[in-house]
Amino acid sequence: MNEQQPFRPKARLPRGFKDRDEAELAAETRMLDTIRRVYASYGFQALETPSLEYADALGKFLPDQDRPNEGVFSFKDDDGQWLSLRYDLTAPLARYVAENFQNLPKPFRRYQVGTVWRNEKPGPGRFREFTQFDADTVGSASPAADAELLMMFSDTLEALGLSRGEYVIKLNSRKLLDGVLEAAGVAVLDRARRGVVLRAVDKLDRLGVAGVRALLGPGRKDESGDFTKGAELSPDQVARVLAFVAPNNADTSQEAVLASLADTVSGSAIGEAGIAELREIIRILNVADYGPERVRVDSGIVRGLDYYTGAVYEAQLTFPATNEEGETVVFGSVGGGGRYDNLIARFTGQSVPAAGFSVGVSRLLSVLRARAGAEVWETEPLIIVLVLDKAAVAESFLLARDLRAAGLRAEAYVGEAGMKAQLKYADRRGAAIAVIEGGDERARGEVTLKDLALGAELAKSTEDRAAWVKDRPAQQAAKRDQIIPAIRAMLNARAR
Amino acid sequence: MNEQQPFRPKARLPRGFKDRDEAELAAETRMLDTIRRVYASYGFQALETPSLEYADALGKFLPDQDRPNEGVFSFKDDDGQWLSLRYDLTAPLARYVAENFQNLPKPFRRYQVGTVWRNEKPGPGRFREFTQFDADTVGSASPAADAELLMMFSDTLEALGLSRGEYVIKLNSRKLLDGVLEAAGVAVLDRARRGVVLRAVDKLDRLGVAGVRALLGPGRKDESGDFTKGAELSPDQVARVLAFVAPNNADTSQEAVLASLADTVSGSAIGEAGIAELREIIRILNVADYGPERVRVDSGIVRGLDYYTGAVYEAQLTFPATNEEGETVVFGSVGGGGRYDNLIARFTGQSVPAAGFSVGVSRLLSVLRARAGAEVWETEPLIIVLVLDKAAVAESFLLARDLRAAGLRAEAYVGEAGMKAQLKYADRRGAAIAVIEGGDERARGEVTLKDLALGAELAKSTEDRAAWVKDRPAQQAAKRDQIIPAIRAMLNARAR
Repeated sequence: MNEQQPFRPKARLPRGFKDRDEAELAAETRMLDTIRRVYASYGFQALETPSLEYADALGKFLPDQDRPNEGVFSFKDDDGQWLSLRYDLTAPLARYVAENFQNLPKPFRRYQVGTVWRNEKPGPGRFREFTQFDADTVGSASPAADAELLMMFSDTLEALGLSRGEYVIKLNSRKLLDGVLEAAGVAVLDRARRGVVLRAVDKLDRLGVAGVRALLGPGRKDESGDFTKGAELSPDQVARVLAFVAPNNADTSQEAVLASLADTVSGSAIGEAGIAELREIIRILNVADYGPERVRVDSGIVRGLDYYTGAVYEAQLTFPATNEEGETVVFGSVGGGGRYDNLIARFTGQSVPAAGFSVGVSRLLSVLRARAGAEVWETEPLIIVLVLDKAAVAESFLLARDLRAAGLRAEAYVGEAGMKAQLKYADRRGAAIAVIEGGDERARGEVTLKDLALGAELAKSTEDRAAWVKDRPAQQAAKRDQIIPAIRAMLNARAR
Repeated sequence: MNEQQPFRPKARLPRGFKDRDEAELAAETRMLDTIRRVYASYGFQALETPSLEYADALGKFLPDQDRPNEGVFSFKDDDGQWLSLRYDLTAPLARYVAENFQNLPKPFRRYQVGTVWRNEKPGPGRFREFTQFDADTVGSASPAADAELLMMFSDTLEALGLSRGEYVIKLNSRKLLDGVLEAAGVAVLDRARRGVVLRAVDKLDRLGVAGVRALLGPGRKDESGDFTKGAELSPDQVARVLAFVAPNNADTSQEAVLASLADTVSGSAIGEAGIAELREIIRILNVADYGPERVRVDSGIVRGLDYYTGAVYEAQLTFPATNEEGETVVFGSVGGGGRYDNLIARFTGQSVPAAGFSVGVSRLLSVLRARAGAEVWETEPLIIVLVLDKAAVAESFLLARDLRAAGLRAEAYVGEAGMKAQLKYADRRGAAIAVIEGGDERARGEVTLKDLALGAELAKSTEDRAAWVKDRPAQQAAKRDQIIPAIRAMLNARAR
């Protein structure tokens, strides 16, 4: 920086990133604690891997492959190797397991919470940095491992305050879709083409049957005129896939759904294996009391990520919620996952079965906050000790310290402004009570307590003023050594 | 990826990064909760800014400026602008305040915990990603704001388990060093040269007086032969700086130290202003009972970062600790900070006084863990329900669910191996108790409980075997509907 001609950067957030305030963070902290408690109660172990991994270790599994840089933030290290910020927590887990396989208990069940980054085009509600909370079981191909994950997923959503019926976890298997394609005579799909089919089906909610039909066939032009290349299946093949993913079976029993799906994939070995696995998962869940009101087979769910190989899961909310713009919307997925038996083999060549799910923390948080109303997430009431006399600031600190020692949240004003600005400050902070200790009062061993919330209410409605003030004085004197009970009484009056 | 010739990346961590396990994360979570509680009790507000900021918004304030890429991970965004991963939490706060100044309460007091990244040469115990927990007060030039931060810093260290006398927070002012240089006739220092002096002094602990003397003068060659350019002060100027920063005054009273420092800077306006501020901070702290056993003036502390303008603080531990390699070392700084009145003016041109401190979470955590011993950080005992009969896995889930509902940490085995491997798994997990429910037992309404910790102890010492087994059977039957009290009794026997 040149002192003569100072450079003044503009203070601005990068596109696709945001600052988060106290209320949001308090709610998120509580949410993460709850999820952690559920996962730990199931005996899952915490793990943390770094934000940056070698780019080749993460691999390229993001759905949106046609953009430059493939959706990932990457840089070249001093030694010429490329590092990338993780785009999920699953690819780093695969690296960790491959690196430490001999020393891990098998199955290895871990949870991890962390920030992930997507170098994608930002948009409203679409951020380039967000939080995921994952749980995975590595080293078991048993449907019991999937069933356990689904039980824990369900328990987590209920621990976060969702009631039964407010959410449903939908269950499907990639093997069924492979079976449908096999049965339809698309036996040898290359990986890229299978990916196009998957991503087309994954957009069913958003584009509807017509949009998916176009993407499975020749391709689709969107509203902006951009053309997305299709999977180029024949019309008969497209019809079979659509019959599978959009069978309109919401009111049918689990058994009937499974039987119908079994018919669809009949004759395909992989499809039949998928059916057998789903049947066993559902059997275990039914015995353990996680019936179709919590977890339900739905062939419309495929998940967008490339690496799933078997069962896939997706949690959806069933009620409309209000988004940050105040609009009523039906929130879609608040998390999901599935079985990915080949991800560790990328490193070792040895197949290690694995499955897991990820809770979309940010999205679920905004739904829960909108639903719960602010009061559930409120922070502790704040007491502010105002400073009339700068020479006595140390005494104000002593007062605030005594309040904190009694379990209250309290601060002494540390700015340099006068009483009026201090009251404005207290108001901006949403403080409950201001404590004022002038020189005369100190000499008498007294302080003044000012009920700031009441002051605000009085300013609003003058008609009930007399009644209010009668029961609950806006300002009162208290003995310095009786300040704690006096404040508690004032807070109780406020809470009634 | 080409299916014919699969690419096998090597599973390895990038240099300077690490994976962290359950015990470390449990301890860190507890530590962060404690810090958060203290900061919130003082009325500081939570804030979270993103990991990535525009590079020009972060500025270049890192001490280690001679390396390429200036210690920061940066990438070019699609629109040609450079983004950097934050290297601390202060520069992003300055951006946030400049962007939102009108809407913030003044003073604005916020805390933030987060990962920061340094693109530095990694070494033992030196990582490129670590956690900081900061508290800052923006918009007050009052020494009361510094005093409050120092009180809160002290309260935080004590809440984390340090006793008085085990740590000391050292207090100095950049203004004093500027005063010394001014009084020594180095009146007009350009910013770069002042930076060289600061960084030289900051290395006093590591290099000793001789090393700092060389860096203040012509320069210094280190063990590896690398030469670091010096500040090129005259011998007399070097002597004055050294007399200031290394005055050997550990046993002198605060008042005597301040008087001696006042003499040193006498005649320099900036130096005298620094003395007046320190006196007021110390006066407030003394009244509020944060005397020299907690916060003490020490002119040897300058802090490495460029942006400080007034008071600087650094917390040091006073006892030797064991590091991760088992060596006994005196840990140096576990956090620090200071006043930076010009950081927001970088954006707005308007000076906004600010001060803050940062707790070095990772470093402090390793000290506390080494000192506390493992038992303080132990996780809840784990109960594992073994699965003898795969067809009965759902019943094992029901059993584990009942244990969790009773507040225990419990899992049913979800792997595919036999009993021997399951017991080995339980052992690797450090489980306390294995629950075994065979078909015959289920028919009788019974389960077998196996005390795994006892089994391990018995294997170690055979002499007391009879006594052990008498008081505390390694294996016992329990009625299925009496399993909770039976497990609690076994856990209690284990804990005695």
